[in-house]
Formats: sequence, structure tokens, C-alpha cells
Amino acid sequence: MIPRYTPTDFTELWSDDRKYQGWFDVELAACRAMETAGIVPRGTADQVAPFRDKLETATIDEIEKETRHDVIAFLTHVEKLAGAPARWLHRGMTSSDVLDTAMALRMTEALDRIIERGDKLVAAFAVRVREHRSTPAIGRSHGIHAEPVTFGLILAGHMAEIHRAVAQLKATRPTIAVGKIAGAVGTYAHLTPAIEKEALNALGLEPETVSTQVVCRDRYAQYFAALAQFAAAIERFSTNVRHWQRTELTEAEEAFHKGQKGSSAMPHKRNPVLSENLCGLARIVRAAVTPALENVALWHERDISHSSVERMIGPDATATTAFMADRCTKLIEGLVVYPENLLTILNRTGGLWASEGILLALVGTGMGRQDAYVLVQRNAMKAFHGEGDFQTLLCADADITAKIPTETIASQFDLNHALAHTSTIIDRALALAGQA
Amino acid sequence: MIPRYTPTDFTELWSDDRKYQGWFDVELAACRAMETAGIVPRGTADQVAPFRDKLETATIDEIEKETRHDVIAFLTHVEKLAGAPARWLHRGMTSSDVLDTAMALRMTEALDRIIERGDKLVAAFAVRVREHRSTPAIGRSHGIHAEPVTFGLILAGHMAEIHRAVAQLKATRPTIAVGKIAGAVGTYAHLTPAIEKEALNALGLEPETVSTQVVCRDRYAQYFAALAQFAAAIERFSTNVRHWQRTELTEAEEAFHKGQKGSSAMPHKRNPVLSENLCGLARIVRAAVTPALENVALWHERDISHSSVERMIGPDATATTAFMADRCTKLIEGLVVYPENLLTILNRTGGLWASEGILLALVGTGMGRQDAYVLVQRNAMKAFHGEGDFQTLLCADADITAKIPTETIASQFDLNHALAHTSTIIDRALALAGQA
Amino acid sequence: MIPRYTPTDFTELWSDDRKYQGWFDVELAACRAMETAGIVPRGTADQVAPFRDKLETATIDEIEKETRHDVIAFLTHVEKLAGAPARWLHRGMTSSDVLDTAMALRMTEALDRIIERGDKLVAAFAVRVREHRSTPAIGRSHGIHAEPVTFGLILAGHMAEIHRAVAQLKATRPTIAVGKIAGAVGTYAHLTPAIEKEALNALGLEPETVSTQVVCRDRYAQYFAALAQFAAAIERFSTNVRHWQRTELTEAEEAFHKGQKGSSAMPHKRNPVLSENLCGLARIVRAAVTPALENVALWHERDISHSSVERMIGPDATATTAFMADRCTKLIEGLVVYPENLLTILNRTGGLWASEGILLALVGTGMGRQDAYVLVQRNAMKAFHGEGDFQTLLCADADITAKIPTETIASQFDLNHALAHTSTIIDRALALAGQA
Amino acid sequence: MIPRYTPTDFTELWSDDRKYQGWFDVELAACRAMETAGIVPRGTADQVAPFRDKLETATIDEIEKETRHDVIAFLTHVEKLAGAPARWLHRGMTSSDVLDTAMALRMTEALDRIIERGDKLVAAFAVRVREHRSTPAIGRSHGIHAEPVTFGLILAGHMAEIHRAVAQLKATRPTIAVGKIAGAVGTYAHLTPAIEKEALNALGLEPETVSTQVVCRDRYAQYFAALAQFAAAIERFSTNVRHWQRTELTEAEEAFHKGQKGSSAMPHKRNPVLSENLCGLARIVRAAVTPALENVALWHERDISHSSVERMIGPDATATTAFMADRCTKLIEGLVVYPENLLTILNRTGGLWASEGILLALVGTGMGRQDAYVLVQRNAMKAFHGEGDFQTLLCADADITAKIPTETIASQFDLNHALAHTSTIIDRALALAGQA
Repeated sequence: MIPRYTPTDFTELWSDDRKYQGWFDVELAACRAMETAGIVPRGTADQVAPFRDKLETATIDEIEKETRHDVIAFLTHVEKLAGAPARWLHRGMTSSDVLDTAMALRMTEALDRIIERGDKLVAAFAVRVREHRSTPAIGRSHGIHAEPVTFGLILAGHMAEIHRAVAQLKATRPTIAVGKIAGAVGTYAHLTPAIEKEALNALGLEPETVSTQVVCRDRYAQYFAALAQFAAAIERFSTNVRHWQRTELTEAEEAFHKGQKGSSAMPHKRNPVLSENLCGLARIVRAAVTPALENVALWHERDISHSSVERMIGPDATATTAFMADRCTKLIEGLVVYPENLLTILNRTGGLWASEGILLALVGTGMGRQDAYVLVQRNAMKAFHGEGDFQTLLCADADITAKIPTETIASQFDLNHALAHTSTIIDRALALAGQA
Repeated sequence: MIPRYTPTDFTELWSDDRKYQGWFDVELAACRAMETAGIVPRGTADQVAPFRDKLETATIDEIEKETRHDVIAFLTHVEKLAGAPARWLHRGMTSSDVLDTAMALRMTEALDRIIERGDKLVAAFAVRVREHRSTPAIGRSHGIHAEPVTFGLILAGHMAEIHRAVAQLKATRPTIAVGKIAGAVGTYAHLTPAIEKEALNALGLEPETVSTQVVCRDRYAQYFAALAQFAAAIERFSTNVRHWQRTELTEAEEAFHKGQKGSSAMPHKRNPVLSENLCGLARIVRAAVTPALENVALWHERDISHSSVERMIGPDATATTAFMADRCTKLIEGLVVYPENLLTILNRTGGLWASEGILLALVGTGMGRQDAYVLVQRNAMKAFHGEGDFQTLLCADADITAKIPTETIASQFDLNHALAHTSTIIDRALALAGQA
Repeated sequence: MIPRYTPTDFTELWSDDRKYQGWFDVELAACRAMETAGIVPRGTADQVAPFRDKLETATIDEIEKETRHDVIAFLTHVEKLAGAPARWLHRGMTSSDVLDTAMALRMTEALDRIIERGDKLVAAFAVRVREHRSTPAIGRSHGIHAEPVTFGLILAGHMAEIHRAVAQLKATRPTIAVGKIAGAVGTYAHLTPAIEKEALNALGLEPETVSTQVVCRDRYAQYFAALAQFAAAIERFSTNVRHWQRTELTEAEEAFHKGQKGSSAMPHKRNPVLSENLCGLARIVRAAVTPALENVALWHERDISHSSVERMIGPDATATTAFMADRCTKLIEGLVVYPENLLTILNRTGGLWASEGILLALVGTGMGRQDAYVLVQRNAMKAFHGEGDFQTLLCADADITAKIPTETIASQFDLNHALAHTSTIIDRALALAGQA
Repeated sequence: MIPRYTPTDFTELWSDDRKYQGWFDVELAACRAMETAGIVPRGTADQVAPFRDKLETATIDEIEKETRHDVIAFLTHVEKLAGAPARWLHRGMTSSDVLDTAMALRMTEALDRIIERGDKLVAAFAVRVREHRSTPAIGRSHGIHAEPVTFGLILAGHMAEIHRAVAQLKATRPTIAVGKIAGAVGTYAHLTPAIEKEALNALGLEPETVSTQVVCRDRYAQYFAALAQFAAAIERFSTNVRHWQRTELTEAEEAFHKGQKGSSAMPHKRNPVLSENLCGLARIVRAAVTPALENVALWHERDISHSSVERMIGPDATATTAFMADRCTKLIEGLVVYPENLLTILNRTGGLWASEGILLALVGTGMGRQDAYVLVQRNAMKAFHGEGDFQTLLCADADITAKIPTETIASQFDLNHALAHTSTIIDRALALAGQA
């Protein structure tokens, strides 16, 4: 988590201050549930509660240097602050009850913030999808011109993919919103399932089905995989922006800010640096998936090998994903689209994109597909090598006009025909994304 | 996909024969839908259908050497077999319509077979969970004895984790059961959404929301992540089997087959080789996640870089996961559990596991937690270093007996007390896994 | 390792027949060394040797089903074939002595075959580097035109990177050419270091410094990382081929074979499918690195978790890398370069690439860099937006001509000036790659 | 890079202050070389040099908000500080000349600091290797007792592996100590190879063979792979410490500090938390390898997607590796070894480890290996199941004593015999690690 790629709310979320407040919240929720259960004196939590604002991160860290145990350091500090009532805290609990439950709170909050951004990103796409619903563009496979699409259709594809990723993030929420107040090895030896349930529900969480000393780490693995899927969806869009902005295409480009300099040496350069940056960041988020999976197989009731991993990938992957969502939202909102360039490029091959239509028209007369392929190919190759306009060449090929009239040929070069269904697809995508 | 780790049904599923049959099925489903739409003569599919059994993989491969295009080679072969009616096949379609839809059929079938195995695995766990519901065992964190659990509780934790992974596999099914018959760049330029829907539904699939030339690869990424989560759940269990079978523990061990030799040099060795193998295979399945994510960002309407990756990780990861499920089922079914060893080891530390209870009892008298900690620790350390039985030491410590009576001390050493809630947890897990 | 991506020599290398021959070779080399040491009767190996050609893979596999131990099955088979003398085989050895040493033989042979291909690939690049040493092309950063390069210089960069990767493969050879004949836990309890050394050296290997039961797996991790580096170097080149072949550029393209069909729907398409395929395969090779690293931390003197991983990634990653080298060699050899298109595209921005030269000329007069930047930028932006030729615009800007004469401006548009040092760089690269 | 896992020298190395100082150093080295070349006035660098200490990170960051280009912001700041002479800086250079060269300086310094730590770590191991050269311990495969080793031998194996990793780090140094001052697309359009060479050599670097706009990223990929290999070597050692410290073994344990608390609930617990932490951190370092490999295939002369990745994994992976080296050094230095426990455990199976020796003795009489195996196994299994002492059982088995005398049996139970070669291996390892 470096400042450059961290939204301010994530700086705050992953701060040590917030960490200790989270621990405090968990201890208090547990304490209140124990009051209900009658094993802690009524009113204890209320007596301790006001000291939440008095927690001093630096002091706790200082104590930890002595105890070499973070939760014990925290409790020592709280006891110093709140006095006798604080002695009732943490009763029958193990450190992981606090750590894992507080981590669940932060991971869930991080997820919620990412989901909120994801929803905004989808909505931002929807605006541009509608705007360019009918803007013709050439579709490409293998980087080679294929057949026409609309720019709105392209964006709709990205919107649909990002929307699926957001849906997956939402599906992951109940998996990660799970805490644990079940004691040393998850047996409630000095607690009860009822205490856990009351405490966790008060925090908006559910209990782990079967705790070990910790919440099971398959939950985290699923979470990071969902982040990586979201990042990959952004990566695909960003990759295409980079293509569109190439000098030879300039079909679309990133908004360029006044005062921004593209190059220290070449004053005219406008580089797709946001998109390239997003592609790089996708690698970072993706890189969290494998260690998260490696974290699953803890030994027996737990070992602590997962902890260092999560201390790093937890903040890094969530903050980076949130940053990507913000940046991608700006990117799509500000994307400068050049319809005239899109059209010029679409026409660049002199209508070669119509070749399939001609092929099908020939096959429709009963000609064998392979024979038709040969007929079309010989004209296509001439056009491709600049030996004439494709439509003209076709109309001059007697073998072809013997089969299909020139009007049929002409109809295959009609963009409206080629794009007849694109609006249907776009509407389907908008509806599915809740943007209809 | 190597024979050693491939269940026979996956050898069949990923065979070339099955591949071409799948292509054939897709072409026919599309053809029938085009008959409905009136753009292909009624009865065409019926005329071609009987030739499904006549497909010759070797012949297609031979043709491909010439055409260097697999789908064209396939269609050429089918046309040779079925004659004129076959010319109506593939009308308005692009290769990816066939490839991706047929791939969806296989990926979905692979998933279904893994899910079926996953369900069996969960059921196999449930049997052993119930069997060892009340078998006491020591819980361990950091490899160090902590407090008592039951062996059934441990197994219930693994069952719950595997069940979550199976649930995730099931949640992934609609994501992958998606095909595409939308033509070159997904615009239905020579097709219609209705044709696609009819054809795909006949095959048990749904249409891609917005196709490019292909089905979007985020769907695959999610699929492989779900496989890896399942593999990780098995890895955690296998890791623990390896621990239990250590010479110093022998708490449980893999079933050992008559005739099996553990070592070519040491005749007595019985090694947890199945569990170790499962840990290795989990690495293989996990290794598919990153390339699947890298496959998402195809260029424009598609490039074919994903294809080679999927040709390898598709069969490899699914077959390996299925193999893992089978092997893990045998492992849990045959697991030889030694309750007497579990108990001996539980008692090994002379009751040190009761220390937390003593600590809490002292705190319950109003003593500060840190003071109580010191009192308990000095006796625990003596016991730990073999200077006496923990319970005896406590009862001989005047500072302790001044606070709590020996009966209270004794009650903390009662296993029934420590394990009072384990059955509740187990029942909760069995219910959630549909095994109550 | 699927047939599509496996060179025939790798099919043979990783066959079971070769595996058992390798085991046989190791047993015999060890036997001969034990004859030298006097612990096995002289002539034993000679008596057994002729049966190498009689090994039957199917029979061994059959026996393994009973013994569930592959080396014991192998030895049983050999004893059946060769009778009494075969009883002297494997004396004091453990299975891993055979397995790991034989694996080292195969991994080393695989490496040698890849290195040989790597050398050929570098040589193939050198030919094209020399051919296009002076072919002007536009250099691009961020996909945007920057300043001129030559096509030979671009290829020289790829050659140098691939050459570094081959050098790294060569540097890895001594790391992997390491076997182990040291008994159960590497102590030579029933062997001697001298026996091991004699046996291994006869096989072209060196002994592991400190064996556990196995050769240490950091050696394998380094090996797979070197493969991935080589694959990444090919991936970078392939990515650029894909760019060059884009419809809008056609600066270069893959050789297209007669009869090859680029698309089943669009007859004119010529797709960079080899390059895309190479990009996909690079993901596969890269995916072997992490499991190889995960394999390092075996428990105590060994566990067998690495074995299943290596059974899959060993053949897969080596065969795929070799296939990539072969395919990339064909790709560079057959690459069709279009110098005229390269030049047309270079000129496309009307000389904007000269902007840095103008900037420097202005700075050279003592003008502040930021001031000069502004002057150049206002003309560059006009040219960029099609409002005139850059050189003409500059000559018409009084603020500029007040500082530098039009001849100086003209000299900055001279390609010979811009490319003055490219031959020096190319010669440096050819020399370093041993291709001068 | 989080404070918890970052050595202070790495906090400093990766600080923004150091970054800008590095840029300054590169600009000045280049300036001096241009003075030599006569294209910048003599004395310019000397005039600018004093302002190195005046660089203000916050001011540069402020300017960057306007320019959105870091190097331009930096140069603007320097020009404000140093006035007119600073205008000569960066002449003919591109941003990457500064960025990549300065990054090479930091990556090389980071490497040197890690290598220095690696050397210390190897030396720390050597001390303990010598100390426990002859301390008997049981060797284990699959977690099951195998044959005797010495604890020093085990440590020697770890030392040798770590030493190999350090050697690999050293081998990587020339690969990463490579800068680039070659202008926009690496052509020296406004520079010369001689200027680059003089400037880089002054900084302790060599020029990239063929630059694009940047230094090629295969160099970085190799670097991160070497870090991961080092981390994996530490991970294997740490995994074994975790095993040794298990309650049932206590063969060795981490030094436990006064005041340290192992558990907030169980006062007696001493957990191998450093080792577990090291295992987790190895996952973090390993996770940098794949994105580093993904960074290689930049588009054309460069895109900037690698930059964000390196901003994160550069500091993270180097600092974490350095931290791991420090922590592992303390771990091995402080490791508390319990020779008596090692011996007790070695004897735990009643001498079953001698089974192979008995087997070989029987085979030495001419008995078939499989027959001998059966004879030994029946006694081994009895001993394994607690039906008697292995040696006694063997001596009571008439089929065995008919073949080998009881003295021969006894000799196989002699530890000196089993460990005869361990000192040789250890000396070999010490010599190779430069610790003889």
C-alpha cells in the first residue's frame, strides 16, 4: 500500500488507529454478550466504552516491544486506561477471537467500499455505452480487421464483464463477513455459541461454522480471487484503450489534462499512461491470489504463517483494487472518442469486412462453402493488396455475378444491415447491469 | 493430464473424439435453430445427425495439416461424410461459435463431475465426523498443545471447508455454462439472438451477455479459482493427515494396503504418501489460476493467446481436481484413527491444557489478568519442564489455593467440561453441509 | 505435455520407456562403482547390462499395481529378467537415489536440447538483424510514435534479451546436473561418497553437496525460473509481431502458408496466430515457477509432495519451452518485413519525431528548457491535429526562427542524423551474442 | 513494505529522498560525461552539485501535481534551486534514462545489502553446524522415522541450500547493475555511446546492450526469481524448526525472550512464531516473481505498465527478503537444541532404523532381496506395534540367525557405523560455503 496508489479512505481503513479501534469494538461486543450471559457484571462494557477515543497506538506499540504479543499489549493498555472494569474484557477469549473478528470487519468494509466503487464504475460505463450505441467501429480479431461493431457495443462488453466481477464481489461478502469468538481452539471451552452469536451479530458478522483457533482461510482465498477477477476486467478494458490510443488508430484516447506533459523530450506526445498503469496494477492484485491460497493449509488448529501475508496483501490488494476502480471510472468518464477516426478506419480495407456476407450469399445459392470461399478470397486478396475496391472487384468477377446480383452484393456493404442487432445486445447488457 | 492422475471419465471427456462430437453437437443445435428461423431448409440437421458416429479424428487431423485451421478441417470432413446437407452447417457462424460453445459443454460437464465427487467427499467426511464426535484429542496451535478438542470436531472443520468449496463450485456453474453463436464479432451479422438462444438452450447453455468473437474469459478465471479453492481445502486436510501420521504422534494414518511397500530400504515404514501427493497436486491446480487470469485481457474482439493455455490447464486442472476428490474420499474413508494414541498425547503435558481455565478462575475472583497470568505461568513452566504434574503443582501453590479451592482446580481438568460444546458445533456443521 | 505443443524428441525423452532406461542406467552406474569399491562382485553390471533393451514398461506398471511402489516394481522386473546378478543392484540405495539421479539426467538432457534450440534462435535473429540493420522504422513508447529506430535495431534488442535468457539456461546447467546416491537419508550409511562420485561422474553428473533423502529442490526452482525467463523473452518478441501485423500497421507479418485459412468466415484474414500462441504458451511456462518454488520446503529429510508436481511441470514446461523455441525460430526466419510500410508509418506524423531535436537546438541557444518546450509544443500540437507539416510550421514560427536558422531545423529532420549510432549498437549486440 | 517487516536501512533506501538523490546523481554523472564530450560547458556539474542536499521531496511532489510527470517536476525543482547551469541537465536524455539508471542503483544496492546478510546467515549456520556435527538425531522421510543423521548434518543441508541461493544472488548482480542513458528510444539520437558508458561507469553500472526506451525487464525478472529462491531456502529451514518445536518432539526451539508471551490464554505456550512468520514472508517474496515476469513483454520501445508493479514489488520484495535474512540469522543463532530429546526420539522406535542394515546383511549372504525384505518386515512390524525390541526380535528369529550371527545384527545398531560419513559431508559443505 503505497500513497501513490492508495485512496485516502483506505489509508484510514488500514491505519493502526483503526486497527486498535476494531479490536476495542470486538472486545466490547463480546463483553456485552457476556453480560447478557451473566458471566460478566452488567454495565462493564459501558464503563469501558468511553476509552475508545483514548487509545494510543504508539503506547500499545511500545508495550508490544516488551510483551512481543500484540493483543496482550493492547489489553494491558486498555486496562491502564479504563482500570478495573477492563479486567473483564477478553474473558475466555483467545487473541485470534479479536484479531480475526476485527480483520473480518475491515475486510468487509474494504469490500463494501470496492463494491460501491464497482457500482459507480458500471454506471459510468453505461453512460458511454448509451452515448456510442450507434457509433460504427471495426471489430478486430487477432488485431486484424474483422467485421463492424459499434463503439457502444464494445463498451457494453466491458461493462458486462466488470458487472460480473462486481456481482462476484457481492457474492463473496457473506463468505468474508464471518468472525469468531470461540476461544483457544474453537471449542467455546470458556464461552458459549450464544455469546459468540450475539457479539458477532452486533458487529454485523456471522460465526464461523467450525472455527479452529482462527476463521478458515479459504474465505480469504475466495476474496482475493474475486478482487483479481475485478482487476482483470479492468485490465482488459485498459488494454483496449491502449490500442485505441495508438498513433495509427487514435480511435479514442485518455483525457489529457492541461499542464500535463506526456514526455520530457517530445512535446506532442499524449500517452495512455492511466491505462498502462491499470494494466500494471492488475498484476499486483492478481499476485495476491496465490499467497492467499497458500495460506489455507494452516497446521492443526492454526499456525501464524498466514498473518504476515495478510498484513501485506490485505491492505495492498484492497487499496489497489479500489484505486483501480476510481482511476478506471475517471478513464471511462473522460475517454475522448473520435467517431470520425473510427469510421475512417472501418472503411480502411475498402469493405473487406463484407466478405463473409458475400460468402454466405454465394452459399445461399447452393454453392459449396469451400468453392464460395475460393471465389471470395481471390477478390479479397486483391483488395487487401490495394489492387482495387472490394465491392467493385466483386461486381467485376463474372463467376460471382453469375450467382448473385450486384444489388445483393451492395446490401452486404450496408452498415445498417451489419449492425442490425447491436442495440438489442446493448439493451440486454444494460438491463442485466441494472442500467436500463 | 497424465494417466497417473487422471480419472478414466476425464480421459474420455478430454479425448479428441469427444471434442469433435461436441463440435458436431453445436453445429447441429445451431442448424436446428436456423431451421426454426427459416434460414436453413427443414430437415437438414436430421440428415446430418447420423454421421456423428462416423467422425474420424485422425482424418480431421490430417486435413488440418493442410488447412492449418481446425474448424475448417472439421467442416470439410463432415461435408465429405454427409454430403450436400452439411453445406448448411456453420452458416453465418465463426469458428469460435463452435469452439467456445463446445468448450462450455465440456467445462460444465467437468464441473458437474467434480461437484458430484465433492458431494461424495463431504458425505464421506460426515460419516467419520459422527464416528469420532466424542473422541478426545489435543488441539494445537503453532504445533504446540493448546486445549482439548474432539477428533470429530477437527474433521467437521475440514468437512465445512470442503463443503464451502463445493458450494463455490456450484455457484460457478451458471458462469461457465455459457456459449456463444453470434458470429464473427458477436454482432449476429448473419444470425439472430433468437437462433443463438434456441441453439444454446437445447445444449443446456445460456448466451453470453455481450460476446466479442469469444465468450469472455473472466468466466474461466472464476472457474479455475473455484477449482483451486477446492484443492486448497483438500490440501489443508492432507497436511493434517501428514501430521497425525508422524512417528511421534500416530494419531491417525492412511489405510495401508496389503502388498504395499513403504520403502525399498526400510520394511516397517508406512508413509502418508496419498496425503503428500494431494498436497503436491493442490500446487498444480493452484498454478492454473494465474494463467487463467492472464487470459482475460484479450485484445479487441479477441486474440487466440488464451487457446493454448486452455488446451493445457483445462484438462489438467479439472482432471487433477477430480482425481484429488476421489483420492481424498478414499483417504477419509480409510483413515485409521487411533483413539488411544489421541488420548495418550492429550495427557502428555500433564494437563497443561487446563491452564486457561485456571487463569479464568483466578480472574473470576477479581484478580488482575496479568497477575493471574504470572501465577499460572510459574506452575505451567514447572510442569512443562517435567518438575511435576500441573494439577498437583497448582494445588501446592498457596497463592493459588488462597484464591480458588482445589475442587475448582479439579473441575478445570475435566474433559467433559472442556468439550461441552463440541457436539453443538458438529451438529451445526453437519446441518449446514446437508448431512444432518 | 500435449502432442500439439510437444516436439517429438521431448515425447521420446519423457516417455516411460526412457524413464525406466534411465533408472537402469543409474542402477548400473552405481553397481559398477560398488564393484570398484569391492562390495559387489566384479562383473555384475556387465551381466545385467544386456537386459536394458528387454525392459517392458507395461510389465513394470503391472507389478506396481501390486507393490504400490514404483522402484520396487522396477527392481522386481529387472530381477526376473536378469536373475541372480540383479540382486546386487540397488545395494544400500534408496529409491530416491535412482529417481532423483535419473530425473537429473532427463532434466539436464531437456535443458541441453532447449539450449541448443536457444542458440539456433539467436542465430536466426542475427540473420534478420543484419538484414534490417538500416531499415528505418518509427520507435514507439506507450504505443505512440516517438523517434526513429531501425527494424534491425528492434530485432537486435530481442536477440540480446533472448541471448541473455539462453546464457541463464546455460548458467543453470551445473545446478541441475546433480544426482545423489547416498542412501535413505543421505548419510551413505551403507554406501560411500566415493561410490557416489564414481557413479554420478560416469553419468555426467556431480553429487549433491548435502543430500537429504533427495536432491534439494531449490535446484529445480532455479531451473524452472530460467525456462520462464526464456519464455518471457519470446513473449516480448511475439507481442511485438502481433503489433506489427495489425491491419493499421502491417509493418511485418508472419509467413502465411499456402492453403492456410485465417478465418472460416473472412477469406482475407491473415492472423498472427503463431505469435499469439507463443504469448499463451509463455503463460504456461511461467505457471511452473511458483509450484517449483513451493516444492522447495520439503519436510525433514523429504516428503513426496514435490513428486506429483514434477511429474506434470517437468515434461510440460520443458517440452513447451522447446516447442516455443522451435516455433519462434520459424517465426523470425519467415517474418515478412515491409520496409515501405515501415517508412510510410515513420513519416505519418509529418516529422513530429524531430521535436526533441528542435527542443535541444533551442536549449542550445541558451533558452530555458521549459520555454523551449512551450515553443515546440505549440507547433507540434498543430501538426498533430493536421493543421500543417511540422517542419513548415516551425519555419513559420518567428519565435523559433529568431533563435535557430531553418538549416538547423532541417538537419533535425534528417534520418541519417537520427540513426547515426544504431549500427554501433547492433554490432555490440551481435558481438555479445557471439554472432559478429 | 510495512514497518513491521522492513529493516531500517531499507526504509531509508526506498525513501523518496533517496529516490530524488539518485535521480540527481544520474543527471550529474550524465552531465559530467557530456562535459567530457564537449556538448555541455565544463564545470556545469560542479555548479549544480552542491544543491543535492537542498532537494525537497515535498516541493517536487507539489510540482508533479501540476505537470503530472515526475521527472519534469524534478527538473523544474532543480532548475529553481540551481538556476541557469541546471538547464544543461538532462540534455538529449529521456525520463527513463534517469528513472531506470537510478532504479538500477537502488536495486543493486538492495541486492548488495541482501547478499551481505546472506553471507552472515551462512556464517551463522556454519557455527551451529560445527557445534552439532556429531549430535545424533533421527532422519525422517514422510514424517516417519528413517535412519540416523546428525543435527549438524541437517543444518549443513540448510546451509548449503542457503549458500546456493546467495551464490545465485551474486550471479544476478551484473544482470541488474545495468543502466541506460541512450535517449528516447535508445538510439543516442542526441547522445553517444561514449557519454553513456562514462556516466554509467562512474555510477558503477554498465550500459544495456540494446536499450529500448528502458532497460529490458528480463533483468528484473531474474532478480526477483533469485530473491524467491533465497526466501524458499529460508522457508525450508523454518518449516523444519516448526517441526522440531512441536510439543511431541521439542528437538529444538526458537529462543524465547524474557517477558515474551506465547499466548494470551495459555501461559506455558512457547510457539515457533518466528519460523511461521518466515514461512509466510516467503510467500510474499515468491509472489513477486510472476508479476516481474509479466512485466517483461512491454509493447514496442516500452509501455509504462511495469512501473506501478516495480514501485510495489521493488521495495516489498527486497525489504522483506532482507528482513527474512536478519530474522533467520537470529533464529539460527538463538536456536535452542535439545540433544537429549533428539537421542530419546532417535531411540523411540527401538532401533527400527537399523532395518535396512539387517536387510543388506541378509542380502549379503546371497538371499534374494525380496525374501530378505519379508524376513525383516515381519520383525519390524512386531517392533513397530510394540511387541518387542527390534534387535531382540531379530535375534530370536531363527530364519535370520540362520543367516547372520547376532554380532552382525548388533553392528547394525551401532550409531557410529550409521554416522560414519556425516563428518565428511559436513566438511564438504563447509568448504563449499567458504566456512571451512
